Amino acid sequence: MAYLEQFGHGGDLLTASALFGVTPEKLLDFSANINPLGPPPVVLEAVEREMQNIVHYPDPAHRLFMRALAEKYQVTEEMLLAGNGAAECMALLLLSLAPKTVGVIYPSFVEYEQLARRFGASVIGCTGREEQGFLPSLEDLRSLLKAVDVLFIGHPNNPTGLMYGKEELHQLAIWAEESGTYLAIDEAFIDFLPEGAQPTLLPELQAYPHVILLRSLTKFYAIPGLRLGFAVAHPAVIQRMREKQVPWSVNRLALAAGEACCRTGAYESETRALIARERQYLSENLAKRFGFYVWPGQANFLLVRLPETMTAQVLQQKLGQRGILIRSCAMYPGLTPHDFRVAVRDRKDNARLLAALTEVLDKRGRGF
Amino acid sequence: MAYLEQFGHGGDLLTASALFGVTPEKLLDFSANINPLGPPPVVLEAVEREMQNIVHYPDPAHRLFMRALAEKYQVTEEMLLAGNGAAECMALLLLSLAPKTVGVIYPSFVEYEQLARRFGASVIGCTGREEQGFLPSLEDLRSLLKAVDVLFIGHPNNPTGLMYGKEELHQLAIWAEESGTYLAIDEAFIDFLPEGAQPTLLPELQAYPHVILLRSLTKFYAIPGLRLGFAVAHPAVIQRMREKQVPWSVNRLALAAGEACCRTGAYESETRALIARERQYLSENLAKRFGFYVWPGQANFLLVRLPETMTAQVLQQKLGQRGILIRSCAMYPGLTPHDFRVAVRDRKDNARLLAALTEVLDKRGRGF
Repeated sequence: MAYLEQFGHGGDLLTASALFGVTPEKLLDFSANINPLGPPPVVLEAVEREMQNIVHYPDPAHRLFMRALAEKYQVTEEMLLAGNGAAECMALLLLSLAPKTVGVIYPSFVEYEQLARRFGASVIGCTGREEQGFLPSLEDLRSLLKAVDVLFIGHPNNPTGLMYGKEELHQLAIWAEESGTYLAIDEAFIDFLPEGAQPTLLPELQAYPHVILLRSLTKFYAIPGLRLGFAVAHPAVIQRMREKQVPWSVNRLALAAGEACCRTGAYESETRALIARERQYLSENLAKRFGFYVWPGQANFLLVRLPETMTAQVLQQKLGQRGILIRSCAMYPGLTPHDFRVAVRDRKDNARLLAALTEVLDKRGRGF
Repeated sequence: MAYLEQFGHGGDLLTASALFGVTPEKLLDFSANINPLGPPPVVLEAVEREMQNIVHYPDPAHRLFMRALAEKYQVTEEMLLAGNGAAECMALLLLSLAPKTVGVIYPSFVEYEQLARRFGASVIGCTGREEQGFLPSLEDLRSLLKAVDVLFIGHPNNPTGLMYGKEELHQLAIWAEESGTYLAIDEAFIDFLPEGAQPTLLPELQAYPHVILLRSLTKFYAIPGLRLGFAVAHPAVIQRMREKQVPWSVNRLALAAGEACCRTGAYESETRALIARERQYLSENLAKRFGFYVWPGQANFLLVRLPETMTAQVLQQKLGQRGILIRSCAMYPGLTPHDFRVAVRDRKDNARLLAALTEVLDKRGRGF
């Protein structure tokens, strides 16, 4: 039988629609972690305007988007590479560095492992310590760095939402340089953190030629349908990645959107305020009203554990029949059949999720 | 100094604009081979409608587009793979088959060779015979098939516009099967040929598990900015290609466009009639009025040779300053500094090209 994550990810509305008998437009999607504000108006306008140019090829060198990114992040264009989603950047990194062995943390975004295997690497996993929210100790990572050619970490990590501090990142980067291992830090969700509280090596990347930062514009700017991400790294690494890139892989509307994303003004701070407020609301209610365990994640999603009397799969089904999608985390190595992930959405949507949970759970909150 | 084809292809309006001091919107582009009718209205409407869904991920399995393609071409969905442009299909073919040696014809689309090298193959080239419009003899191809793991041919070939007949294709496919060589036939421009006169193995592909057809929707349906192509091949080959594909590589608007492309009705026959008429008009005028040699290509572009007293590069510059772009073919192995390619556009545009040529050429048509 088909199951919701048959393609390995959340946000699959077509499968959900077939499974739950709800039209895709009526589904409320907590299974993909997208900014609940939707795309910024300035981005939608840019895409609408660019529609007249779909008759022309995309710029093969992504020049205008590169310029906007370089200005926004204060790095040189030689340190930047645009990708058809962050996923393409990950693939280019693997294709260009051709690691024999790739290190991953369990649980984390499944594509690190899947792409690594797809492109011929063997994978060494390190399961984080449950009592630390599945964040591995620095010493564990140091050992892993010594054992692999490329190490992927999610920062904040998906699905836990946890991360290291700035000092710990510096320590990891120093060890990566010492062992000549490439450290790929996936910062797909870092934009959702408060400005000034985003632990990233971006401003100091010049010092670490083995560190690659991967960023996504699809989550924060709510344009997953368009596909856009980028990588920041030493020019030599970027050049190697560029050599593996298929011409025109980033489409024209995504490039126009990306340029506009660099000038969205108040949208960014509004998003961060909304996510901080709603994450707290959702987390507190899931814990207090239902007694679920909620990991103290810092991103725009929450990892939640049900009591042992209930499974995420059954909960997913019961909510799905009510038109609400959650991400079962049963298939993440390191997690259990009781774990699920929900995106942080706006108050109306979050309240609807909580109300639906009240409906499907029995009064003691221990079963269905 | 930058030159117009610095990224290896036509259609680079940003470079053209910088070189010739003309804003991109004012450029008349004969350097990319795009349907002059522009995107079909039904496709534009589908993309506009899908804009509201860019907040959702693309369907990772491309299900609705696959279904529409399978119905249109009367093949099973297991024989189809959607790609982020035909270029991604070529890349997936190389990544999945991992050929040690790739065969190409000179001159042809430069990406066959560039992608092959990019993914680690060595390349063996076979220069077509000039007296046959650079179409290699079947015997030459038979030898090449024996020497390589994958052979790419353009059909019709870019930039010559020439191709083989159906019987010759069958012969090549049989030889490919005999030598266990994969034969990749790039049919990116075949839709422009009269219906019923498109020599393709598509209806008989079941018989040839080593033949892969590559198709593009970007040229015929005038949506290069969106990126969309597909491959047709034996299910085993398609499955291997799919295993190398990065998730969500085909964006949501391209998928919606692709579905709509399968039901454009009269647009297809109107395009074919326009191209046939205008190709003849352009070809005759280039030959008779200016004495240029024009290859008898069958696609929506023409390869043209200037007299030895003139170079394509200087002609490109003189036309560029007038806002008209042509594709210099000087860098194609097998061609000369006197060769250029022009797209077949509508009468107004073609007439403007001819008028501009009259302006820049001296009265004898032997120099500038």
